Amino acid sequence: MIQSGDDLPQIILDSLDEAGITLEDGDILVLAQKIVSKSEGRLVNLAKIVPSPRACELAEKIQKDSRLVELILQESREVLRTRVGTIIVEHRLGFVCANAGIDHSNVAGDGTLQEEWVLLLPEDPDASANRIREQLETVSGCRLGVMIIDSHGRAWRNGVVGTAIGLSGLPGLVDLRGEGDLFGYTLRITMIAAADELAAAASLVMGQAAEGTPVVHVRGFPYHLREAKLQELLRPREQDLFR
Amino acid sequence: MIQSGDDLPQIILDSLDEAGITLEDGDILVLAQKIVSKSEGRLVNLAKIVPSPRACELAEKIQKDSRLVELILQESREVLRTRVGTIIVEHRLGFVCANAGIDHSNVAGDGTLQEEWVLLLPEDPDASANRIREQLETVSGCRLGVMIIDSHGRAWRNGVVGTAIGLSGLPGLVDLRGEGDLFGYTLRITMIAAADELAAAASLVMGQAAEGTPVVHVRGFPYHLREAKLQELLRPREQDLFR
Repeated sequence: MIQSGDDLPQIILDSLDEAGITLEDGDILVLAQKIVSKSEGRLVNLAKIVPSPRACELAEKIQKDSRLVELILQESREVLRTRVGTIIVEHRLGFVCANAGIDHSNVAGDGTLQEEWVLLLPEDPDASANRIREQLETVSGCRLGVMIIDSHGRAWRNGVVGTAIGLSGLPGLVDLRGEGDLFGYTLRITMIAAADELAAAASLVMGQAAEGTPVVHVRGFPYHLREAKLQELLRPREQDLFR
Repeated sequence: MIQSGDDLPQIILDSLDEAGITLEDGDILVLAQKIVSKSEGRLVNLAKIVPSPRACELAEKIQKDSRLVELILQESREVLRTRVGTIIVEHRLGFVCANAGIDHSNVAGDGTLQEEWVLLLPEDPDASANRIREQLETVSGCRLGVMIIDSHGRAWRNGVVGTAIGLSGLPGLVDLRGEGDLFGYTLRITMIAAADELAAAASLVMGQAAEGTPVVHVRGFPYHLREAKLQELLRPREQDLFR
């Protein structure tokens, strides 16, 4: 039940304390986007949004609230595809997702009709992860990783999976080139999206509905921690065969 | 070091025994595609493949071994995209992947030059998972899930992630519609690709290079186990905006 302005790192530290967990070097905290966005005051009252003509036109075409479409367009660099109810965009943060990651679910306004409020993604999730990590590291004295995740749809496959949208202190990609395999071959697979694998794992633990487990504590991440940005997980559009 | 004809379920049972693990109802075993394919004798000697004219033409275009291209085409329903070294296909099993999942890595032939051998995916991974599960359930007396995974690239994002290619006894998708969230809203996210989230989690534990951890034992999967096929994870092509 995070509110705008809440001290999220302190809340996480208190929760770890309650759970009897002492942070150690190499631990990673995975945070649901929602709690980060809420703490950063990213709730928007739809009633105050005036849709542009472009938003109105698209909204009619896909049968969606024109004010919500306006926000989706504001949060995006480009519309890639549309279908009824859904706009697949390149988000201003660089990743491809549905409806710019804007969320009705689990969002409470300040007494106003709740359906009128929506939650935008954090302004800069890498920076959010950095900030949170810094505070957690200062208090714990440990070298940590922090990741912010959301649930994203995929091309080709049904259903959503937990996906990284912001990183601090852990690799997005792990490069296996030069490692060789059991028989000393050249590896077919050379780059593992380790952060996305961890995001999916954490998402399983979080659940999606009413369970309310928005922070997952990870110990034993099998790859070397290092500084990284989400960018390394994003395929440059000129190399993307599926845009 | 699995060989064709090996009794994979028995090897898994022996390994669990050695590790001091007793299977319980609800446990899931996640298997790397490689060991399943090897046990099923899916190694192919490239030296015995005669490429078709179509394979030769494509091989020249993308600078790839024409015999390997021939196998990729044989294992695929359709070529979706090509670039140097890579053919993105709809596999005959229905999913989209690079090079039909055919693998040079970690493959040993029978004394022949190893580079000449490649490993195809299992003939029918759902059926393989069923078979393995049946034997594990008979011996253990427990209700289990079995999943076979491979590492797949994605549209839009760099790096590969562990992905389900065969299922038995666990859901591919989990439908959250009607669950409601903390505030009783309609959920934005309604279908979770739970099997793929678990595949990614298991892949993290397996690693990709020389570690050799091809089976992951999962306890505490948070969703209800049920009968399912991989099919439910595959988006029908007419609903896929990114083909």
